[in-house]
Amino acid sequence: MTSGTLPLNYLTSLVRPELERMNLDLQADLQPEHADLLPLVEQASGYRGKQLRPALVFLSGKVCGETGDEHLTVAKVVELLHTATLVHDDVLDGASMRRQMPTVNALYGSEIPVLLGDYIYARAFHLSVQMSDPVCSRVLAEVTRRICQGEITQILHRFDFSWDEERYFEVIRDKTALLYGAACRLGAHYSGASQEQVEAFDRFGTELGVAFQIVDDCLDLQGDEEVVGKSLGTDLRRGKLTLPLLFLMREEAVALRLRALMESERERGPMLLELRANFDLESALDEAMGVARKRVALGMSALEFLPESPGREAMMALGDYVTSRRL
Amino acid sequence: MTSGTLPLNYLTSLVRPELERMNLDLQADLQPEHADLLPLVEQASGYRGKQLRPALVFLSGKVCGETGDEHLTVAKVVELLHTATLVHDDVLDGASMRRQMPTVNALYGSEIPVLLGDYIYARAFHLSVQMSDPVCSRVLAEVTRRICQGEITQILHRFDFSWDEERYFEVIRDKTALLYGAACRLGAHYSGASQEQVEAFDRFGTELGVAFQIVDDCLDLQGDEEVVGKSLGTDLRRGKLTLPLLFLMREEAVALRLRALMESERERGPMLLELRANFDLESALDEAMGVARKRVALGMSALEFLPESPGREAMMALGDYVTSRRL
Repeated sequence: MTSGTLPLNYLTSLVRPELERMNLDLQADLQPEHADLLPLVEQASGYRGKQLRPALVFLSGKVCGETGDEHLTVAKVVELLHTATLVHDDVLDGASMRRQMPTVNALYGSEIPVLLGDYIYARAFHLSVQMSDPVCSRVLAEVTRRICQGEITQILHRFDFSWDEERYFEVIRDKTALLYGAACRLGAHYSGASQEQVEAFDRFGTELGVAFQIVDDCLDLQGDEEVVGKSLGTDLRRGKLTLPLLFLMREEAVALRLRALMESERERGPMLLELRANFDLESALDEAMGVARKRVALGMSALEFLPESPGREAMMALGDYVTSRRL
Repeated sequence: MTSGTLPLNYLTSLVRPELERMNLDLQADLQPEHADLLPLVEQASGYRGKQLRPALVFLSGKVCGETGDEHLTVAKVVELLHTATLVHDDVLDGASMRRQMPTVNALYGSEIPVLLGDYIYARAFHLSVQMSDPVCSRVLAEVTRRICQGEITQILHRFDFSWDEERYFEVIRDKTALLYGAACRLGAHYSGASQEQVEAFDRFGTELGVAFQIVDDCLDLQGDEEVVGKSLGTDLRRGKLTLPLLFLMREEAVALRLRALMESERERGPMLLELRANFDLESALDEAMGVARKRVALGMSALEFLPESPGREAMMALGDYVTSRRL
């Protein structure tokens, strides 16, 4: 059994008390002045899932020294920014379920979650600007802008069959990886790490984030809906040219057939079935997963200079987890 | 001719160079890394209209002393936050035109403007956290949260016929007035005004903002679409109980008739015609405009301690403008 198959809870157990404190704190931080908003805020709080990003803040801090109130704030801000993007993503996708709960848009229509996402973004920035050191605010405001830029670029290039790997990696860096990088960077920064160390932690997080998104994109095309408990084939149906699809498209004849399939008006399910039946999807997925593992290894190598410690071990195990997860 | 009937351009002429510099700067600040995003950003920049809020930043600064780079940043941040709310408002309202231009959602559907609004919010926060003094960031992150809270509360209480004046004023304070207050507060703060003066400028701006929103709510019910160039009766049709409607509802029998009208499935135009024909709308509008004028007077009284100066005069003239504007 590799560490990657251990439950995530176990991997983050080293920072369990910090994560629990964070969750308690977040409940209080999100309390609105009006009872009206309470059910909304609670609904969005239910979106919190793996808490990988805040775990990385605390772990990076622990590896570099002591963790304190600043790590707690950074972890909360990172988690809130992520929550805000999820609330907006669900409106964009018209998603009805997330983590076995109805989405805010399923319950309230699409107007409320647009504003609720904005509310959570504003709360996150407000928390960050309370800190005396402005590094957290500066890093995370810029990362948030890049997240939006990445998501917009992706939408503008749906069904763009001239899309290539370079642009794909640029987009997943912006929309996903930079926040992982920032979580590790800020965790190290607030434990007094040197500039060089801070950069190394950023590289580790960014590579992990790139791998995380590649795996996400693969998971949309493989497995069984009943088992993974989420809708598959969504990217395919929406014209997102993710890495395994780009790999398939290297052969011109295959690219033409894939384009015809994606541009057909078929539903998600049948489209995915046909992809699996008539294309060498398995090889493309294997190749993409191979790239994800390489990116994790690259990230880990950035932290090789660190002496052995439980924190370092937990971070490496999280790296393995990213490419072995099924959800 | 009262100052209120002078064109807005004239009233803000004292800070014209600062506003022009701001607009140039904003173009550069919003430059995205990717050409893809450029038309989107330019589209949203076209939303900028009266620029009352940045004008108040510069005027408040001028009245209290010198204006400098900090005022420029505050003005840009205030204007960007306002632009971001407009981009999101247009998605929420499904609006197709703003300032004689197609809205972002009319051109790109609703996904892009949700993300574009987030992008502009993030850029605004990023600009504000570059400042060495954190007051701007702290004030504006909190105001942004309150804006969202006000807008959410308003949506949750559409067609809520137990809605009352107290809640109405609470909502317009949150969603509109606090940003005006913050513009004046920060303008004074960054010119070295005393805490007491800063509070007075905040009161002036907040009262102006309350009046601005009351006038906006009145303008939705009066005038001629052809002349004002925007859709009328929108609030009515969407169940927003604005001040003139709340005034009408003080008589129980009228309240019941108004409720029946608003809950009817009629279109905006015919609904407004019937409101005008069968209710004493004119008195209600007069009364609401009277409240708006009182709030402006209250705001002006907060600045009475100031010695005569062109800046003070311009601020008072802006107060008059707010209740005499037709657009």
